[in-house]
Amino acid sequence: MMTDRKLGEFELIERFFAPLATGQGAAGLKDDAAAYTPQPGHDLVISKDMLASGVHFFPDDPPEAVAAKALRVNLSDIVSKGARPTGYVLGLGLGADMPENWVERFCAGLAADQERYDISLLGGDTISTGGKIVLSVTLFGEMPSDGIVRRTTAQAGDLIFFSGTLGDSSLGLQLRLKPELAEISGLSHEDLAYLKQRYLLPEPRTAGYSAVARFAAASMDVSDGLAADLGHMCRAAGLIADVTVESLPLSGAARRWLEADQNIWPWIVSGGDDYELLCAVRPRDRDAFLAAMRETGTHVTEIGRFGLQDDADPGVRFNKGGTVVAVEGPGGYRHV
Amino acid sequence: MMTDRKLGEFELIERFFAPLATGQGAAGLKDDAAAYTPQPGHDLVISKDMLASGVHFFPDDPPEAVAAKALRVNLSDIVSKGARPTGYVLGLGLGADMPENWVERFCAGLAADQERYDISLLGGDTISTGGKIVLSVTLFGEMPSDGIVRRTTAQAGDLIFFSGTLGDSSLGLQLRLKPELAEISGLSHEDLAYLKQRYLLPEPRTAGYSAVARFAAASMDVSDGLAADLGHMCRAAGLIADVTVESLPLSGAARRWLEADQNIWPWIVSGGDDYELLCAVRPRDRDAFLAAMRETGTHVTEIGRFGLQDDADPGVRFNKGGTVVAVEGPGGYRHV
Repeated sequence: MMTDRKLGEFELIERFFAPLATGQGAAGLKDDAAAYTPQPGHDLVISKDMLASGVHFFPDDPPEAVAAKALRVNLSDIVSKGARPTGYVLGLGLGADMPENWVERFCAGLAADQERYDISLLGGDTISTGGKIVLSVTLFGEMPSDGIVRRTTAQAGDLIFFSGTLGDSSLGLQLRLKPELAEISGLSHEDLAYLKQRYLLPEPRTAGYSAVARFAAASMDVSDGLAADLGHMCRAAGLIADVTVESLPLSGAARRWLEADQNIWPWIVSGGDDYELLCAVRPRDRDAFLAAMRETGTHVTEIGRFGLQDDADPGVRFNKGGTVVAVEGPGGYRHV
Repeated sequence: MMTDRKLGEFELIERFFAPLATGQGAAGLKDDAAAYTPQPGHDLVISKDMLASGVHFFPDDPPEAVAAKALRVNLSDIVSKGARPTGYVLGLGLGADMPENWVERFCAGLAADQERYDISLLGGDTISTGGKIVLSVTLFGEMPSDGIVRRTTAQAGDLIFFSGTLGDSSLGLQLRLKPELAEISGLSHEDLAYLKQRYLLPEPRTAGYSAVARFAAASMDVSDGLAADLGHMCRAAGLIADVTVESLPLSGAARRWLEADQNIWPWIVSGGDDYELLCAVRPRDRDAFLAAMRETGTHVTEIGRFGLQDDADPGVRFNKGGTVVAVEGPGGYRHV
């Protein structure tokens, strides 16, 4: 309880974590706390997501990918608020049975993403959980004061935009959980690999943060599925959202699978793990928002519009060929 | 893997966590990220400590005490750097078998300490670990820019100060681990209860933060035992520390047990979980430091002095009656 809880912590820090602490305030992780100096006139935006082995990732996922996912689910939160990511503190709960080089490979994954997203490790804590691996990342971003873009501030008439493609990660997860789906889906090896990779490695739309900050009226990232998360935006603002099913951005792989089996539809709209941007944009800001997103190479698609609540429940209506369709089925949440 | 991971999270947030998010930037926890506006001209100081059930607390500890410990081990870090604690984000990994009202009682513990230490919940994440309870707190403090007091900056000649009393928590842990020690120790019920309470509930010396900021040349909190942590300060600065054993501040309970059994000595100096301040103070600042600590009601004791390294190893020397004594034995780390 006492003597083993710090076992090897100092060695781990010196060998693997200290090289990641490139910022000055981290003091080479030789202290109990980090100093962080925000730019004058800027707010911090803070995100915290935890991940547990067997719940948010598979125990046999490559450690590099686990590291990347732990950072990227938080990066996705931060940029959806319009902030530029800057650094993070890491809580690493090591499991009872860890492969010999797990921490080394995990740190290699952190290093690669620090480079890719221009962020630095600021500090953290390493413990032994005595059970499963549990990761806790607190990620920081900065933006001009009082500029944070909330998820609660959509208005009737706002246009709804979605980045990237929808549902790939959810389909990838289903393929991991039920390998027999690979054959049933009739998809090519490339399509199957693409979907599984989309689950393994989120691709947060970090380049789009400034377009969000400048032109989005409300924004969040989609992690619990489009139906659920757009539903949150609606309820927070007392609105409905009319989504045009035909406009939803699907990858080739998702489109081909959906053409072969309409039953996968709920996985696509409700499965989660998309880590794409979901933005409400005033009609007058539409062109500027699209231009700013295009400038950063971030693909966004207009998928619908917020409206005044016309019955008891605020919520999402998926419209297909003029008819409202339900979002229920295998693995799906219950929403209409 | 997918549908259960958010099970009840929104209900938990609304019922138990939202009332704790009293700061404006927390937005009632209705968003994926918190906004934090530091005072102009101030740095943030950031601490992260994780706790796992069965490692850092006992599974049957009162949930209120677990909450308090999760906050207080971080508060101890922050004030040892000279910063005023302001707020925190919480990662709560719920275990597989949770008592019905565990979360409610845990949140009551958070609420009590938020009041006590004038801090606010800013945001967080709740997951199911599928195994044990794992907590991750990232705590923030603020202080005038570039003022952080590091653990690495002691100099030869600096006086060494220790707050509160030493070793109580370590002895309390031993009593929890080996209940038969209660009788062997010959201590009264009051003494036994006092020591166990000191393990259950750290008492970080938060009032002392400004005295640290103004007059400490180096500082840290003691969590891994005086021998180990003072050793870290020594090695970071290439110094030795001469500690006078007779001057170490012991509680009545610890003193009585030590008088009955000298073998508990290593538990006292190496056991850990003290969460007391360990400060290096220049001799010219001694009186001002003592006065500032006294003003905040924080008891500190001068226990020794840093010196130039006179042999191969920087490190701690415990001097008793003019002789260097070893710090080894039951449950102790190996240091001299």
